[in-house]
Amino acid sequence: MNWKPRYIALLMALAVLVGAAGSYIGIEYFGSGEQQSQSAQVADKGAENFGSLSADEQKEFLKDMAGSEDLKKIEQAMGVIKKNYVEEVDDKKLVEGAVQGMLDTLEDPYSVYMDQETMEQFNETIESSFEGIGAEVSMVNDKVTIVAPIKGSPAEEAGLKPNDQILKVDGKSVEGLDLYDAVLKIRGEKGTEVTLEIDRPGVTDPLSIKLVRDDIPLETVYSDMKTVDGKKAGVIEITSFSEQTSDEFHEALQKLEGNGMEGLVIDVRGNPGGLFTDVKDILKEFLTDDKPIVQVEDRNGEISKEYSSKSKKKDYPITVLMDEGSASASEILAASMQEAGGYDLVGTKSFGKGTVQQAIPMGDGSTIKLTLFKWLTPDGNWIHEKGIKPTVEVKQPAYFYTNPVEIKEPLKYNDTDEKVGNIQKMLKGLGHDPGRTDGYFSKGTEAAVKDFQKEADLSVTGEVDEETGGKLEEAIIEEVRNEDNDKQMQKALDVLFQ
Amino acid sequence: MNWKPRYIALLMALAVLVGAAGSYIGIEYFGSGEQQSQSAQVADKGAENFGSLSADEQKEFLKDMAGSEDLKKIEQAMGVIKKNYVEEVDDKKLVEGAVQGMLDTLEDPYSVYMDQETMEQFNETIESSFEGIGAEVSMVNDKVTIVAPIKGSPAEEAGLKPNDQILKVDGKSVEGLDLYDAVLKIRGEKGTEVTLEIDRPGVTDPLSIKLVRDDIPLETVYSDMKTVDGKKAGVIEITSFSEQTSDEFHEALQKLEGNGMEGLVIDVRGNPGGLFTDVKDILKEFLTDDKPIVQVEDRNGEISKEYSSKSKKKDYPITVLMDEGSASASEILAASMQEAGGYDLVGTKSFGKGTVQQAIPMGDGSTIKLTLFKWLTPDGNWIHEKGIKPTVEVKQPAYFYTNPVEIKEPLKYNDTDEKVGNIQKMLKGLGHDPGRTDGYFSKGTEAAVKDFQKEADLSVTGEVDEETGGKLEEAIIEEVRNEDNDKQMQKALDVLFQ
Repeated sequence: MNWKPRYIALLMALAVLVGAAGSYIGIEYFGSGEQQSQSAQVADKGAENFGSLSADEQKEFLKDMAGSEDLKKIEQAMGVIKKNYVEEVDDKKLVEGAVQGMLDTLEDPYSVYMDQETMEQFNETIESSFEGIGAEVSMVNDKVTIVAPIKGSPAEEAGLKPNDQILKVDGKSVEGLDLYDAVLKIRGEKGTEVTLEIDRPGVTDPLSIKLVRDDIPLETVYSDMKTVDGKKAGVIEITSFSEQTSDEFHEALQKLEGNGMEGLVIDVRGNPGGLFTDVKDILKEFLTDDKPIVQVEDRNGEISKEYSSKSKKKDYPITVLMDEGSASASEILAASMQEAGGYDLVGTKSFGKGTVQQAIPMGDGSTIKLTLFKWLTPDGNWIHEKGIKPTVEVKQPAYFYTNPVEIKEPLKYNDTDEKVGNIQKMLKGLGHDPGRTDGYFSKGTEAAVKDFQKEADLSVTGEVDEETGGKLEEAIIEEVRNEDNDKQMQKALDVLFQ
Repeated sequence: MNWKPRYIALLMALAVLVGAAGSYIGIEYFGSGEQQSQSAQVADKGAENFGSLSADEQKEFLKDMAGSEDLKKIEQAMGVIKKNYVEEVDDKKLVEGAVQGMLDTLEDPYSVYMDQETMEQFNETIESSFEGIGAEVSMVNDKVTIVAPIKGSPAEEAGLKPNDQILKVDGKSVEGLDLYDAVLKIRGEKGTEVTLEIDRPGVTDPLSIKLVRDDIPLETVYSDMKTVDGKKAGVIEITSFSEQTSDEFHEALQKLEGNGMEGLVIDVRGNPGGLFTDVKDILKEFLTDDKPIVQVEDRNGEISKEYSSKSKKKDYPITVLMDEGSASASEILAASMQEAGGYDLVGTKSFGKGTVQQAIPMGDGSTIKLTLFKWLTPDGNWIHEKGIKPTVEVKQPAYFYTNPVEIKEPLKYNDTDEKVGNIQKMLKGLGHDPGRTDGYFSKGTEAAVKDFQKEADLSVTGEVDEETGGKLEEAIIEEVRNEDNDKQMQKALDVLFQ
């Protein structure tokens, strides 16, 4: 890549912010390992102005734009709108709109504009250590969409799912808001309540889900040793790739290896991605110099390849666990472990984000987050909007995918309703066969409801009222949390020692 | 209103286009009756350039914009995007995006940008005399939404409905397209086919609807004399307000009056609006100088009121028929007849569009259509996004609101499906009681299907396959077309002579 020095300064500027934003991969291509910490320090200082360009450099930068026909047209349109529109128009809003509008033409949901106010609130929110609901979100088809809830967060506990679309926050529509404005509405102080109206694929009526905001855990690595057929299997779960992640990972790995681990499962389910350097550091531990661990393609089609320096793989087997919530850096990990390492990928198809963004400060406190590169797999595949297929596909049991049910009128024999279908799936997951799961409340379903009510010490009516519905949901959440029901993990462990 | 003369020239410029666009109200506030035809001629000439401003006037117009901080930021953002984005960026697209982005900040679905290409194709389409599907559309919450199908058009025949959202045209998503780009994809030569994927409120799966494009009827007024309890009731239907509409209306009215009409129903159901002058001309025929027929509020809150010069109302009773597809000029008519004339409004709540747009050419072939005014009812109410409530609410029978059903697998006894619910409503509308309409295929439904199959000379299976589904749909469309089933019209006639 041929970056002029001034760009490097410019692009490094917001490394701190990059780390914190979480939903995209920070760029630290420009130095090798040792130089990175230095860059991060420089970055902190540069963050408040438009790079560190001299006046002359700025002039050169803007030269070919000045006085262009293009700008005249924008100027003219601005004049027409300001002078004629039925309401008073705020100049600044028009400018922000123009910048947003230019970004919109890129048709890239990851290239976004964050205005001054958004950035200020964003920085404040970061400083107050991620009090919120703990879900990574993205703009998909103009809708604020859950990529993944963070492990142990209110979002996960309330049952938010990948691909849920957030329609309203506390009764107010987020339609038309950009991602960051929407996120700021969702975030808030620990202990406060927020109600989200959610459109879930396959569910007709919007769901209303109440959450209590909390500190969002900043730990990103969790490890455990399991025993499978007398063998020691290490499990390392990575919940996102942030600044400490690779250090935490190496520490956890060392400990497991020290304890005689005979195989490793790396779990990136629901991991929305993060910093590019972290995932590279982790991959370099496992892969050899035979193939690139990842490739990066710039706007001119120039490709740079990154290699590990190792000559030998680990002497124990490894599998990677992923699902539809595994995005970005998680997908780099999965693709690389598979294509360069030959390791199995267990679970379901990943999210499909194959681009790399950088935050570029505009000098007035606002920032453009712009897609600069594509990343390619070791074999040169671009998985954007496609995702990565597992080598061993395993879904969780059907009741993992049930939806919260709001019962207004009790549901009973002979009713037909989408909600009945959901309840039937829950009953089935709890071992009470409802006969069918298509939404028709049959005699068999009634019997299953009675069974459940007996078990849960409810009055045995055979009807599903608010209380029975609530108990069903509690029981399902308990089942989902029970490790014994994690079919994907079981498969990953099975595959390990085959 | 205080419009400087140069603005008048500018704003009159596209009167011809205004008339053709149909979905908004042309502005001809600036002259009284006699001057209007003159203006329309001027307009035709001025249409190709940025008004008829001299170079000096243009300079003055743009003066306060030049060199502003606002533009510098747009310039800077443009530079950042052009030089860094992962793909090559087209300068012109960025400019169009900026203009669109500025309009987006207005949060007004009726203020839109039409680029050169769109305008060229748009003009061509107009010249080829409206070959298309015949539906008026609007952008609602970023979705291309049907306001109303035009009477006798392919859109009406295929069963498109108000509030249907168009997702795809011939398999290609219209997501992200602006209204006019989307419309151009839908339009095309007579005889050609187009398949729309439709998201209909209350229907989970998108519907696929095939239409054959046709000449869209340019007649906008249809009249008829009916006999109700021995009395002669005139009916005038207005399908949209275009240049000839008020002339056609007056002609029809004269004829009905000459034939001894004793009462009048004005039917603006499904009428999406059009030219402001037309509806005013029509209202002036019926209303007196006691109250304004309509009020117009400009950006400074200044209100101008328009009056009829008549001192006496018609000596026969009048009712207005409207529905959820009655928008804009239709709503001016309905509101005015009710508030100023005291006439009944029969039907369902209207669409809710209370603003007035004008097309402003940008000089390079592109055009900004901008909202300039609000219109208020005679009593000063703004009905925007609220609609007008009927004084006598009547819905059509339930089967008017059924949806086309795509049958892949035959539907049969004990199935549970939204499609079954639709079929049940159709059966009920055809006089074959299905027992229930909630989507559960009961024994009663099976019997009703058999009844229908017997009647329609189909093999009597009790299952709904593609053939039975198709015949059901045909039968329903026939019922909907049958005037005897038009409950709203019947009510309007009843109310007339009460």
